Amino acid sequence: MIRPVYWDDGGVVLIDQKALPLREVSLVCRDYHEVIDAINDLTVRGAPAVGIAAAMGIALGANGASAESKEAFQRTFFRICDEFSRTRPTAVNLFWAIDRMKRCVEARWESSIATIRKALVTEAVAICDEDIEANRRIGAWGRELVKDGDAILTHCNAGALATGGYGTALGVIRAAHEAGKGIHVFVDETRPVLQGGRLTAWELQKEAIPATLITDNMAGFLMKQGRIDLVIVGADRIAANGDTANKIGTYSLAVLAEAHEIPFYVAAPRSTIDRAMHDGDGIPIEERDAREVVTLGGIQTAPPGIDVYNPAFDVTPHRYITAIVTDAGILRPPYDLEIRALFGK
Amino acid sequence: MIRPVYWDDGGVVLIDQKALPLREVSLVCRDYHEVIDAINDLTVRGAPAVGIAAAMGIALGANGASAESKEAFQRTFFRICDEFSRTRPTAVNLFWAIDRMKRCVEARWESSIATIRKALVTEAVAICDEDIEANRRIGAWGRELVKDGDAILTHCNAGALATGGYGTALGVIRAAHEAGKGIHVFVDETRPVLQGGRLTAWELQKEAIPATLITDNMAGFLMKQGRIDLVIVGADRIAANGDTANKIGTYSLAVLAEAHEIPFYVAAPRSTIDRAMHDGDGIPIEERDAREVVTLGGIQTAPPGIDVYNPAFDVTPHRYITAIVTDAGILRPPYDLEIRALFGK
Repeated sequence: MIRPVYWDDGGVVLIDQKALPLREVSLVCRDYHEVIDAINDLTVRGAPAVGIAAAMGIALGANGASAESKEAFQRTFFRICDEFSRTRPTAVNLFWAIDRMKRCVEARWESSIATIRKALVTEAVAICDEDIEANRRIGAWGRELVKDGDAILTHCNAGALATGGYGTALGVIRAAHEAGKGIHVFVDETRPVLQGGRLTAWELQKEAIPATLITDNMAGFLMKQGRIDLVIVGADRIAANGDTANKIGTYSLAVLAEAHEIPFYVAAPRSTIDRAMHDGDGIPIEERDAREVVTLGGIQTAPPGIDVYNPAFDVTPHRYITAIVTDAGILRPPYDLEIRALFGK
Repeated sequence: MIRPVYWDDGGVVLIDQKALPLREVSLVCRDYHEVIDAINDLTVRGAPAVGIAAAMGIALGANGASAESKEAFQRTFFRICDEFSRTRPTAVNLFWAIDRMKRCVEARWESSIATIRKALVTEAVAICDEDIEANRRIGAWGRELVKDGDAILTHCNAGALATGGYGTALGVIRAAHEAGKGIHVFVDETRPVLQGGRLTAWELQKEAIPATLITDNMAGFLMKQGRIDLVIVGADRIAANGDTANKIGTYSLAVLAEAHEIPFYVAAPRSTIDRAMHDGDGIPIEERDAREVVTLGGIQTAPPGIDVYNPAFDVTPHRYITAIVTDAGILRPPYDLEIRALFGK
């Protein structure tokens, strides 16, 4: 199984997703700053994977933090948590994972530094293992939405590489394929960073799931030709009413899917749901460096000095979403009630 | 003025649009095969510019054709016309220009080869000059659709570079800017060949028209934010009912514009209207090499061997088009009647 981030021998091992698909390279982070850099520069990306990487990075940082006094250790621990929380603003899994790490420490105020350090590693590894399990459950629920012979459109990479393993949207696709449904996947290349063309295409090829790569602006034309049966994407943050932040371009796909009466599904673990966010309007949208748009592989493709707008995400209002596939079952509108029920209140 | 193709000293001069925006290079074709290659490899592109290049290429070919006998000359001439007609299938301006060149010869069956050769050069230059004039008229009509302060979204390059000069959609934008309207242009980069990011951004920068570059998948999110007042694009072929073939991605923009109640305009000279084509379903859609999608600047960006779908154009049904700006005035629905009236029957 593809595992983009895992704990090994006191270090955080990452697949370098910037090097894919041409080079399969792993790097081992021994200092938490390396993990922060890897999150910032998209060596590791994808909402759940970023959460896992942050948790493991925090465990790594705690291992290296001053042990002179408990107070000094705790101060350093919370500072490290703050540093991770400033990496990427949109995906809520990051904050969710950091909160879990904080609670892990807070539950052990009285324990020794050594015990706390060990508990933090155990917690980070548990976050990863639970994510993989959640994705398998997402796959098991979601495959029921896929019929034999369906052509599925996906955007960005919501695959093994975006999670602890197996994937969310690609988890559903994997599960449908494993169940013997003869599916075909159309992959949006997903400008500007090409997570679809570089990562999703690579994952599907590795599993021999039939796939065709398109540029993002071809999706509507495929829908018009009746060549898409359903759309499934991942999520970076789902508000309490079902509004969903995901990779830029997701909103356009959702509008196009509605115009063509094609089901539009979101797949995500419960850790992606932000119940404190009433609706999608409040979700912060990260804007990234203009260089992502005006260069490719280091080559300038647009005139120097041109103004660029580069939001990394957009928000799809819940009314465009046919269903949300979670690890605890499939949510249908009205999402506010279903999400409340999911969390038991 | 930017002139992507013109006749000079017995040769066809082309701006190498593959080299833009980083290098401003012209090449002079002395053999008509070079013009065919330039059309095929997108050195010159854009429906009207391709028509002009073909006309000039045919004039060039006629100048080099055998003068042993009138019959041999005519056979060679028609063979050259056939060669040009096999370059790019979607834009009708190519076939329209070739037809004009054929009629120019047919009207001079009795003349000397020298006279015919001269007439063909005159005709090709006239096609170019008329196109520039048509674009200025498109601009004059179209600027009335633009309000002071409007934010305009455009796709691909329907600029000076796509025409004899001045441009169609960018002609409207130029005319609005020249009229002192404080416009801002959002430019879709237009994958896979990046005619927006490379060419439109370059043209707008040259004229100091405020512009912001986006990836294609950001357009819907901008519309959702209320940041787009109108969309204007060019056309490669307009059917008798107003259905419009244009660069891939245009259809998606039209659907998105309708969903956000944003006017969607097409700008094109009358030579882009194909009255023999009843509706858009019959327009042939060129599929281009997969390498356009999986490489950029020679760098492979997707896993080798991945299947690719690469249609260069799509068709926007007339019901999504608010108005068509032509050199003879602005057409409104029902387009079939307006187009019939435009041609006087």
